Amino acid sequence: MSHKHTLRVDAIAIQLGGDLVGDGARELSGLSSLADAGPSDISFYSDLRYSKLLESTRAGALITKEPVSELKIPQIVHPDPFLAFLELVDEFFPVPPASGGIHPLAQVSESARLAEKVTVMPFASIGDEVSIGAGTVIHSGVVIEARASVGDNCTLCPNVIVRERCRIGARVILQPGCVIGGDGFGFARRDGKFIKVRHVGTVDIEDDVEIGANATIDRATLGRTLIHRGVKIDNLVHIGHNVEIGEDSAMAAQAGVSGSTVIGKRVLMGGQVGMVDHLTIGDDAILIAQSGVIGNVASGAMVSGYPARPHKEVLKSTAELRRLSELRKEVRALEEQVRALQQKAANDE
Amino acid sequence: MSHKHTLRVDAIAIQLGGDLVGDGARELSGLSSLADAGPSDISFYSDLRYSKLLESTRAGALITKEPVSELKIPQIVHPDPFLAFLELVDEFFPVPPASGGIHPLAQVSESARLAEKVTVMPFASIGDEVSIGAGTVIHSGVVIEARASVGDNCTLCPNVIVRERCRIGARVILQPGCVIGGDGFGFARRDGKFIKVRHVGTVDIEDDVEIGANATIDRATLGRTLIHRGVKIDNLVHIGHNVEIGEDSAMAAQAGVSGSTVIGKRVLMGGQVGMVDHLTIGDDAILIAQSGVIGNVASGAMVSGYPARPHKEVLKSTAELRRLSELRKEVRALEEQVRALQQKAANDE
Amino acid sequence: MSHKHTLRVDAIAIQLGGDLVGDGARELSGLSSLADAGPSDISFYSDLRYSKLLESTRAGALITKEPVSELKIPQIVHPDPFLAFLELVDEFFPVPPASGGIHPLAQVSESARLAEKVTVMPFASIGDEVSIGAGTVIHSGVVIEARASVGDNCTLCPNVIVRERCRIGARVILQPGCVIGGDGFGFARRDGKFIKVRHVGTVDIEDDVEIGANATIDRATLGRTLIHRGVKIDNLVHIGHNVEIGEDSAMAAQAGVSGSTVIGKRVLMGGQVGMVDHLTIGDDAILIAQSGVIGNVASGAMVSGYPARPHKEVLKSTAELRRLSELRKEVRALEEQVRALQQKAANDE
Repeated sequence: MSHKHTLRVDAIAIQLGGDLVGDGARELSGLSSLADAGPSDISFYSDLRYSKLLESTRAGALITKEPVSELKIPQIVHPDPFLAFLELVDEFFPVPPASGGIHPLAQVSESARLAEKVTVMPFASIGDEVSIGAGTVIHSGVVIEARASVGDNCTLCPNVIVRERCRIGARVILQPGCVIGGDGFGFARRDGKFIKVRHVGTVDIEDDVEIGANATIDRATLGRTLIHRGVKIDNLVHIGHNVEIGEDSAMAAQAGVSGSTVIGKRVLMGGQVGMVDHLTIGDDAILIAQSGVIGNVASGAMVSGYPARPHKEVLKSTAELRRLSELRKEVRALEEQVRALQQKAANDE
Repeated sequence: MSHKHTLRVDAIAIQLGGDLVGDGARELSGLSSLADAGPSDISFYSDLRYSKLLESTRAGALITKEPVSELKIPQIVHPDPFLAFLELVDEFFPVPPASGGIHPLAQVSESARLAEKVTVMPFASIGDEVSIGAGTVIHSGVVIEARASVGDNCTLCPNVIVRERCRIGARVILQPGCVIGGDGFGFARRDGKFIKVRHVGTVDIEDDVEIGANATIDRATLGRTLIHRGVKIDNLVHIGHNVEIGEDSAMAAQAGVSGSTVIGKRVLMGGQVGMVDHLTIGDDAILIAQSGVIGNVASGAMVSGYPARPHKEVLKSTAELRRLSELRKEVRALEEQVRALQQKAANDE
Repeated sequence: MSHKHTLRVDAIAIQLGGDLVGDGARELSGLSSLADAGPSDISFYSDLRYSKLLESTRAGALITKEPVSELKIPQIVHPDPFLAFLELVDEFFPVPPASGGIHPLAQVSESARLAEKVTVMPFASIGDEVSIGAGTVIHSGVVIEARASVGDNCTLCPNVIVRERCRIGARVILQPGCVIGGDGFGFARRDGKFIKVRHVGTVDIEDDVEIGANATIDRATLGRTLIHRGVKIDNLVHIGHNVEIGEDSAMAAQAGVSGSTVIGKRVLMGGQVGMVDHLTIGDDAILIAQSGVIGNVASGAMVSGYPARPHKEVLKSTAELRRLSELRKEVRALEEQVRALQQKAANDE
């Protein structure tokens, strides 16, 4: 993944479908942020918060929404500079083609069905009746257990585990060490002792999902744990048994969802958020980092704190709390004044 | 783990030792929750909170404590419907027998001692002088280091790590990716720099314990980290060096216990709970999710919040906090009234 | 790692450079804490909090700063008893020499460059153009991807993953299952859908760093995520893309740092601390366990709570909060008194 390419600015402008301002013959060999870019890098500007960096950037070219007249470097005017920049990443850092074969040190069951152009790296283990879609890459140390299925063009990074009968859609990325389909944490408690509830359900991960490194998605007790299309889950997140997460929702690192909670579409969850079991979180809700959610959350609501409440109320309470010693002093002063009034009234009698 | 079985309701009633009400000839092929069951599934009813589901369930048969006269399906009356249901899981989803052999792609030291019917899957690595008890299943990618021991009928799921000299009892389940016996986080700090404290102690896990996916149990500095019989630990939990957890305690996902803390028996810890080091938590204590525990907790106490306090107090404080702006208004009103009284008193003079 | 050694107290005193008090001929075969030591163990005393244990300890010898006259056992007087004790650990528990070879069941690319005395255990996988320094030990199941480099005398515990092009310095310890160089959690959101930001940057870990079990250090979007010399990171910690952590800082278990945050030198972070992105944390700051940090923290500051504030303020607020119902009662009493005064004033007219 080294950058072998050198590209001219005018060629880049054509590729991105942007308008060129300035010298199109400038050659570039990399891309970088405004702060880190050097003279052979192209950068982008799309956020007013970074306007100060325009004065000091050493970038060799810029992708921008509006031409920046002060900058004496070639510019490509594009309606979405960040998206254009992301497109260029693949130019400068081309994804290396996968080997497209099964390494002799991999272990693949005879009853597994592998489609075309599947790559299986050393020490990966693929169980009975597993099916793997075309173009999928299975890295070293991955374990896919019996009767699981993985769709087309997925990436299973090193040491990923997909347990028996779980289903992974297409274009899913499983970051290193994540565990799909471990047992849910379910026990019957009798006389103070725990009796294990076997988890015979599965996990179903739809298309275009990404799961972070060392995250854990538990299988259902019965039925299935369901991660809908386009969901993005960060590192070290925990998803309990029978949870359902709606399309295009995202969870930041170390968040956790307890069993049977149902999360809507486009919900955003900050890092270290926790949710108790059997909740319903409405579409487009925002759960701010470290929230401890113990009740249902309405669609579009923004909550924070423990126990989680509307974020505006939390901010207000926090401000009130800071002024609490001041309030106490005011009450003390009032007591003094009332005592004086009482004294006076008594004297007057 | 597909369900090949079809069972008649009367046969199920006999097996469970329950009383049959209705048509015993009905054939069933699966089991499910009241909400998800279809006509060929048996379900159970044991919790009044789900009584509404009885009206709409499509289940083909029901296990229940008291007959539900409105339901026109065969019923099995049993004193503990949920336990009876769990027993049936093994009927409909029989545990597949383990292969009972050592895969040629596993690596087992010549000095390791394996009892009868041990299964070792591909790419598992078993070190010198390790002992493994009868019937234990070692999945792919598991690493058991030198002089560790594992008891009878354990399950070590894929990529589990048991480091040198650690001891695992009988019937222990280690979910995928958990790490038993990594070094504790201990350093001497001298002139602002850290000097590593080598951890030469071990981890001792007693019988009937379950440890969750990607959880980490650190080895002791000296002596041992000790997880007593029947403890259940969920995914991504952290247990520090020299911790001791009493029998039949349970910890939900992402909770963490710092070094040398001693937890009693039957303690329940919610998700994301944290505890500082060197604490003592009494028997039967309940630590509510996300609690930050910085002092000892008495037996039977229920605490929450940060810093953790008795849960009743926390609820009261939270309620007070919400009414704080109201209190502030009352104080403002009082100030007005006192000022008026003062004014009046001054005028009267 | 069994203790084969028996050492005389006088020999130990010479080795540690300490002064012997008492019978130097006493033979010892192990070391332990004051509480756990038996007659053949040496222990140490350096913390006044443990002075009570001196009365009951059964230790056979003691390392101490000042002679303890009440104790009738041989003592070694040393200016830093704990450091002296740590030095002795290596005597009683000598580190077993590594095999110093490549196991036939490991997979090492032909283009990888391994220095002298590198150990590679079974099922480890070392990619193209990887370089490994002298004396480094690669345990079972480790994956080191193409063009990554690892310095001298490192230990990569079982199932550690170092992704492509990441750089590890010398004497680094990576505990089991940690992931170096997974993709950062970065997405462009367009019309409610997420577009993946490819992460083509790297992770750079300097000398003498230790990373805990199942911790995750994400690679940079562009540029690098940077962990400076001497940093110690505990289990299950999450470090986002493009984060920088200054020399000799330490993070306890389950803490998390969001993307692009810059942490100074000698910063101490407690367990389960969380930080939002793009913050600056000054040198020597202390972030108390479970803090939720949403703003910059000044050098030397100590913060706690959510949102994190100066710890002294938090303690004060917490105390105030506990007395809130009392304050409310005082306001009620005042209202009564004011009403009585108003009544009286009205009557007087």
